[in-house]
Amino acid sequence: MNVSHLSCLRCGRPRQPDEGHLTCPDCGAGGLLEVQYDYTTIARTFDRDALARNPDRTMWRYEPFLPVPPGSPRPHLAIGGTPMYRADRLGLEIGLPHLWIKDDGLNPTGSLKDRASAIAVAKALETGQDTVACASTGNAASSLAGNAANAGLKSVIFVSTRAPAGKIAQLLVFGATVISVEGTYVDAFALSERAIADYGWYNRNAAINPYLVEGKKTVALEIAEQFGWNVPDWVVVSVGDGCTIAGVYKGFYDLLQVGWIDRLPRLLGVQAEGCAPICRAFVTGGPVEPSAEDTLADSIAVGYPRNPDKALRAVKSTNGAMITVADADILDAMRLLGRTMGIFGEPAGVAGMAGLRRAVTQGLVQKGERVTVVVTGNGLKDTASAARATAPPIRVSPDPERLHEVLAAANVIR
Amino acid sequence: MNVSHLSCLRCGRPRQPDEGHLTCPDCGAGGLLEVQYDYTTIARTFDRDALARNPDRTMWRYEPFLPVPPGSPRPHLAIGGTPMYRADRLGLEIGLPHLWIKDDGLNPTGSLKDRASAIAVAKALETGQDTVACASTGNAASSLAGNAANAGLKSVIFVSTRAPAGKIAQLLVFGATVISVEGTYVDAFALSERAIADYGWYNRNAAINPYLVEGKKTVALEIAEQFGWNVPDWVVVSVGDGCTIAGVYKGFYDLLQVGWIDRLPRLLGVQAEGCAPICRAFVTGGPVEPSAEDTLADSIAVGYPRNPDKALRAVKSTNGAMITVADADILDAMRLLGRTMGIFGEPAGVAGMAGLRRAVTQGLVQKGERVTVVVTGNGLKDTASAARATAPPIRVSPDPERLHEVLAAANVIR
Repeated sequence: MNVSHLSCLRCGRPRQPDEGHLTCPDCGAGGLLEVQYDYTTIARTFDRDALARNPDRTMWRYEPFLPVPPGSPRPHLAIGGTPMYRADRLGLEIGLPHLWIKDDGLNPTGSLKDRASAIAVAKALETGQDTVACASTGNAASSLAGNAANAGLKSVIFVSTRAPAGKIAQLLVFGATVISVEGTYVDAFALSERAIADYGWYNRNAAINPYLVEGKKTVALEIAEQFGWNVPDWVVVSVGDGCTIAGVYKGFYDLLQVGWIDRLPRLLGVQAEGCAPICRAFVTGGPVEPSAEDTLADSIAVGYPRNPDKALRAVKSTNGAMITVADADILDAMRLLGRTMGIFGEPAGVAGMAGLRRAVTQGLVQKGERVTVVVTGNGLKDTASAARATAPPIRVSPDPERLHEVLAAANVIR
Repeated sequence: MNVSHLSCLRCGRPRQPDEGHLTCPDCGAGGLLEVQYDYTTIARTFDRDALARNPDRTMWRYEPFLPVPPGSPRPHLAIGGTPMYRADRLGLEIGLPHLWIKDDGLNPTGSLKDRASAIAVAKALETGQDTVACASTGNAASSLAGNAANAGLKSVIFVSTRAPAGKIAQLLVFGATVISVEGTYVDAFALSERAIADYGWYNRNAAINPYLVEGKKTVALEIAEQFGWNVPDWVVVSVGDGCTIAGVYKGFYDLLQVGWIDRLPRLLGVQAEGCAPICRAFVTGGPVEPSAEDTLADSIAVGYPRNPDKALRAVKSTNGAMITVADADILDAMRLLGRTMGIFGEPAGVAGMAGLRRAVTQGLVQKGERVTVVVTGNGLKDTASAARATAPPIRVSPDPERLHEVLAAANVIR
């Protein structure tokens, strides 16, 4: 593979991948590692024409940019290759004529997180581990359980007893061992870390694992390829623990190193008003302070984000921006995407769209700019929020005359 | 376009497409029409190499086989191009070494029905209609609402007041006008037919519209292409009103006419024991009798199927078979697909898998045969059934020693 080494984001010291560290041992707990590639070799042995001829539409088409040996064992779900839609009518409504939507909710388990979990499972296979684990009730867990099942690995998922039954059902169908911890999510997380240490399971507790960002970056590689390597001016994405926007940055960064693109798009990171610790640190320039988790966008309700360093660097070094949106804006964006595009996103999945709308209103994003919004998760994961976003159906007795009245009142007929 | 005419399935009389009939006016209500193509022209102007070079992975790559003029307006959701997975471990468990799963639950609104609704919306656009309508709470409705929204059409969906709120939420997010009819599904259907006649909306009430089958057939075109035109011995699919299996048949039939394949796969149609009117007619050779709708597989709970003629022909003329499965078999198939493949299907979506398992046990499908099962809908559409399919999570206090005990008891650790 083309990985040269891991480097510490804080102290810059290089680490060899086989040292087994997930964080820098010289920096204390905060020193996140980052995967570095031999870009000269990639540029010499791989090119855009070879890529264009590859019929594989999944994320694995970018294998030379991934931290896995060529042809190594991996899950075989069809992750990536998600559609990039022109959004002309939607763009007209929000005053942006050059708008595209990338729907990553169409990944196999319904979210962008599949890209990261596939790498986690591939790394577990590579290192001979037979069990992967994490604490989550959300997209990280379902994608990990699904990819583990596909690859024949066991998965152990720690959830709080408060987790909704519907989300747990998907995990159980995937054959995961689901441990319901009596207490809060913090209790579940702590117990998962202890068990991972005790039993030597592969750790997919997101942000500190440097390989997960490498999976997420494939969304940026796809965006660049779908734009014919002429990247948009802005890429917009919701931000929770910071890993996704860090992955988007890393993808474009890699492409810039090998000369396949000539600039980085500006990244617009969007958080929910009720849980915006990274956005607040970006605006104030101060440290990241823990926040309440007061938003219906549960997939980005991360009060103690674990990847703020990479996220803040992603925004700052692309001359990007961060913005917050109210839950009402998120529900509005859900309706907007549904009504104009036929795209159904979960609340966190459409928060980027809500943020873009606000950014256009504020003049931060200009009318002439080319913009892509990533929808990160499928609305079918949270139909309760969708019900909150919409007015109830029109109730009527089975009588054509009564129907005529209600249709006229609703302006469906004239 | 390459459509030559419509023909009546019962009396064989040809009809010109522009006559506007959805059923044969000479046969009474039962005479379904079928789209016939000028296969000589298709064979002369289109070939498999040209297809292979087309980078469009959606169903529209098969445009010369579709009843739409080239380049005509249509919805632009990324429908089709769904993955075909080898299923080695799953095959091993059920005694079938040559098994593949096609996951059509990864279509944009979560089901195979997107293929039909896209054609419905394209036909509505072609004929200048601005509103499409149907009576459904299921996949037909959500796919119609999503595709209509994408194309800028209005949709009116009639549901019963008994329909679950979660399924309605998706429709409302897509901006559909949802009419909740006080009464049963039969009342909702009757009111929809009356309104469609009164207001001139485009009718997507499935089975009598001959164009919908043409959309569904693209799943068979894809299967053939994904198998390199060497089709499997069996294709397995669940059966409700009969349109999907009719579409699968039509796709392979078309390919046989142009010489791209040299035989039809045998079709195995699977119904739920509690609602198996087409299967019963197949077995007895008698007419199709209405049935109760006693199954959790709601998407195939069709007691009065509207397309039995095409469905029965599909099975008989491929030397196929029909089989029923209990709800317990369906839940078992859901777990099996989840645990071995990381695929999450809704109950009706996995009924085909349950039927195949039974067919192997009965010796109907033989060990050496190559088999593809189509998963027709996404499990996220019905997490309540998934919860019924699985045991509850393992509950534990946040204590490593207690965790150790429960993990050992569950054989997760030794």
